Amino acid sequence: MYVIPEPSKQLLTDMMAFTAAQIAQLVEGTVEGNPMASVHAFGKIEEASPGQLSFLANPKYEEYFYSTNASVIIVNESFQPRQKKETTLIRVPNAYLAFATLLSKYQELVQQQLTGIEQPSFVATTAALGSEIYLGAFSYVGKCAQIGDQTKIYPNCYIGDEVVIGKRCVLHPGVKIYHQCVLGNDVIVHAGTVLGSDGFGFAPQPDGSFTKVPQIGNVVVEDQVEIGANTTIDRATIGSTIIRRGAKLDNLIQVAHNVEIGSNTVVAAQAGISGSTKVGKGVMIGGQAGIIGHISLGDGAKVNAQSGVIKSLDPGKAVYGTPAYDYTQFLRSQVISRKLPELEKRIQELEKIISDLKSNG
Amino acid sequence: MYVIPEPSKQLLTDMMAFTAAQIAQLVEGTVEGNPMASVHAFGKIEEASPGQLSFLANPKYEEYFYSTNASVIIVNESFQPRQKKETTLIRVPNAYLAFATLLSKYQELVQQQLTGIEQPSFVATTAALGSEIYLGAFSYVGKCAQIGDQTKIYPNCYIGDEVVIGKRCVLHPGVKIYHQCVLGNDVIVHAGTVLGSDGFGFAPQPDGSFTKVPQIGNVVVEDQVEIGANTTIDRATIGSTIIRRGAKLDNLIQVAHNVEIGSNTVVAAQAGISGSTKVGKGVMIGGQAGIIGHISLGDGAKVNAQSGVIKSLDPGKAVYGTPAYDYTQFLRSQVISRKLPELEKRIQELEKIISDLKSNG
Amino acid sequence: MYVIPEPSKQLLTDMMAFTAAQIAQLVEGTVEGNPMASVHAFGKIEEASPGQLSFLANPKYEEYFYSTNASVIIVNESFQPRQKKETTLIRVPNAYLAFATLLSKYQELVQQQLTGIEQPSFVATTAALGSEIYLGAFSYVGKCAQIGDQTKIYPNCYIGDEVVIGKRCVLHPGVKIYHQCVLGNDVIVHAGTVLGSDGFGFAPQPDGSFTKVPQIGNVVVEDQVEIGANTTIDRATIGSTIIRRGAKLDNLIQVAHNVEIGSNTVVAAQAGISGSTKVGKGVMIGGQAGIIGHISLGDGAKVNAQSGVIKSLDPGKAVYGTPAYDYTQFLRSQVISRKLPELEKRIQELEKIISDLKSNG
Repeated sequence: MYVIPEPSKQLLTDMMAFTAAQIAQLVEGTVEGNPMASVHAFGKIEEASPGQLSFLANPKYEEYFYSTNASVIIVNESFQPRQKKETTLIRVPNAYLAFATLLSKYQELVQQQLTGIEQPSFVATTAALGSEIYLGAFSYVGKCAQIGDQTKIYPNCYIGDEVVIGKRCVLHPGVKIYHQCVLGNDVIVHAGTVLGSDGFGFAPQPDGSFTKVPQIGNVVVEDQVEIGANTTIDRATIGSTIIRRGAKLDNLIQVAHNVEIGSNTVVAAQAGISGSTKVGKGVMIGGQAGIIGHISLGDGAKVNAQSGVIKSLDPGKAVYGTPAYDYTQFLRSQVISRKLPELEKRIQELEKIISDLKSNG
Repeated sequence: MYVIPEPSKQLLTDMMAFTAAQIAQLVEGTVEGNPMASVHAFGKIEEASPGQLSFLANPKYEEYFYSTNASVIIVNESFQPRQKKETTLIRVPNAYLAFATLLSKYQELVQQQLTGIEQPSFVATTAALGSEIYLGAFSYVGKCAQIGDQTKIYPNCYIGDEVVIGKRCVLHPGVKIYHQCVLGNDVIVHAGTVLGSDGFGFAPQPDGSFTKVPQIGNVVVEDQVEIGANTTIDRATIGSTIIRRGAKLDNLIQVAHNVEIGSNTVVAAQAGISGSTKVGKGVMIGGQAGIIGHISLGDGAKVNAQSGVIKSLDPGKAVYGTPAYDYTQFLRSQVISRKLPELEKRIQELEKIISDLKSNG
Repeated sequence: MYVIPEPSKQLLTDMMAFTAAQIAQLVEGTVEGNPMASVHAFGKIEEASPGQLSFLANPKYEEYFYSTNASVIIVNESFQPRQKKETTLIRVPNAYLAFATLLSKYQELVQQQLTGIEQPSFVATTAALGSEIYLGAFSYVGKCAQIGDQTKIYPNCYIGDEVVIGKRCVLHPGVKIYHQCVLGNDVIVHAGTVLGSDGFGFAPQPDGSFTKVPQIGNVVVEDQVEIGANTTIDRATIGSTIIRRGAKLDNLIQVAHNVEIGSNTVVAAQAGISGSTKVGKGVMIGGQAGIIGHISLGDGAKVNAQSGVIKSLDPGKAVYGTPAYDYTQFLRSQVISRKLPELEKRIQELEKIISDLKSNG
């Protein structure tokens, strides 16, 4: 049997050991108990061990407050324990938010410490690398590519010729970016994702075969976009496939050639968007949803999971189903479709009564 | 034109050349014919060439028994050829099982022979490598990572900092495992799969943008799990995303943060499971099915392909459709939904008759 | 803020600078204006800058003809501008086709120039490499593998033992091909795609666990097939999973073990085909469609996006829905299913009238 190690104990011990007083200062909270209580790792309240920092936000988890071994617990200002507990507390207006803020700061710290060029890696002589970057072993940077300051490229990545990547980006292991694609600043791309593969364009020939239509555009990803793992975004036939500022894409998503995804739009895992479709700002696309090509989705539209959208949507419109239509209407019809066998029976009964009435009439 | 080579002839010749007598011993069968007949490769009965070992289990394929060029054929004890055939036979209680057993032993043999560290590869000085491991070229092992005895890591893999991998695991080419994930013993992961990418968690801001919620948990994969190619399993926000002992996951599957998949559960290709959902033991999830977040699927539940599950399921429950409901009820409704145009017409006719009746009444 | 560079300006400048006269010769057109007008890049008519070549085919875009900065524009022979424009024109029978032809020739040129073996790469001593090949850094070629003349393998690819690859193929970065798979000539495989991973085969055991069924077949990809990014094609249990000549597969597709996909068949992104299913020639499979195992799809069948096919299809048959049935019938039923709440109400009204009639009768 294998043993699940205490998560990241060793690394975190080296990385940080903070007192309750220091943490309270970071999250603008007040200490209740020993201000010198020291923690070196994060833990869920139901699992935390001594030396760990935890939090209680949801009253559903209050029971664990009394049994946890965490050394320091962040709680809401309003929290009143039903039993006495010796553990040091840090009181803040919003315990969950404070905890998330701490994690975020911690991760930034870890990320910033990652710098240097590991060997072997491949950097074309005409590539331009910014300052304080990390380039992992077995990563490849092609001709005339540009990597901005403080960008971190994990091992086994491929950055094609003339790719331009902004500042403070993170490319996780095995990301592949085809030639001439452009990433803004603060972009995060998860492992195995492909940007800039050829759009799926073929011209049918009289003999039933297909001729490839060259795909000479690129992919442009604006600032603060995050893209999940093993997602694919095809380059445009001509021009650019564009992911606008702040959009968030999950894992295993397909974005076809010449698509444009609007600012702050969120796309859940395994959704697919066909060629030349324009998705507005602040749109929500559910998991495994599919959007046909050459349509547009208005700002704030909502596409339910697994829906198949085959017509353009007005701003704010919510849809469901394949083909997709009004969300509420779909749910109502769906409830009745479950009793179709019963409806059919009622029609048969009516037909019989009518028939009897007529023959008796 | 290219030529399809005889499959693996050269390698297999080097690897093994067994006599019918040796094979009979391995599968506890009895030889009928020449016990010294020698084979060095496997082949389907309809395609096998001299020097190959084949089998006949399904009576549907009996015709090929008389035409095949295989040198040795494994058959069921009860099999009685309708024509005389000179080929050497090995009789066993279950021909298919015996053949599969042989293949399995052969593959173990090949796998075991794969050892050593190919160069160039990257191993952090603080990483701990077990004995008899294989580490392919261009693979990366991060700080404090631990690789168990006899584990095989193919080329172009990424093993992040503090990852723990058990014994006798196989990671196929291009697998990426983020920091602090844990794999048990006898785990197989196919090419391009990503374990431990960030969960898809973002906090909406008043201006419509999103702030990343740090994902500091990990992924834990227990013993004897097999995971297909280009699948993605996200790390937990806090705690672990867990794949329990003996579960089998196919290709291109999405497993979101904090999901737990039970022991011996089978998930078919392109299915997706949303955040914090708990899947029980022995569950079957069909291809392209989607499961919403924060629900639980009871032990032995069955989710049909392409279904969209939006409510928790009782143990053993079978469902179908989007949203998914009772499997049998769905099929019944689905049959009637095909004749909806006819049902509508019948209602119209009834309305007309009633209207006539009333105006005549 | 990052700046989107003029696409590929630098590389294209180096690569080609052609006059209108030279281009006219390549596409068999006639120049109208300055035959010495020089271009070094392609651009969309609405975005093109000086020094770029553009085209106008669709009358919808005619307004841009008058405002574009392109130096040379390819137009249809029949095109009559409504306003005078100084730009040099090249007149051809079909402007779009001429433009696509040029792009195609340009890409061939770029591809052909890519040769040589970058270091570090890994080539087994028993591997056979053809002439004029490109092997990118961090790519791996296993024992007894064969790579045909003029094939281009980008960085971070894995070519397993005994793999055979034909002539003029292109494997984009991070493609992984398991042992003994076979590719024909002129095959294109996009980044991150996996060929030859184990089929999903497990034998259930009495205790609820599963035993792996060895997968010892391979994948055979015939000439002129193109496969998108992050797609997975599993090896056969025994024999071959086959993709026939000229088939085109998009991104994130799952092809299970022992599937056969016919010649010139087109499969859109995220579709999945289950084990042992045989897809005919010239079939169209829409995005996110799923096909059950062990059936066959006749030549020219059409499966609409997101459909779930659970029965064999006759040649030319078009289907839609889950489970899929006749396309036209599905659309008709689907329209009525939207008004199911109304239909139910009409039945209720009929029941009430009948009930009244009977109690009054």
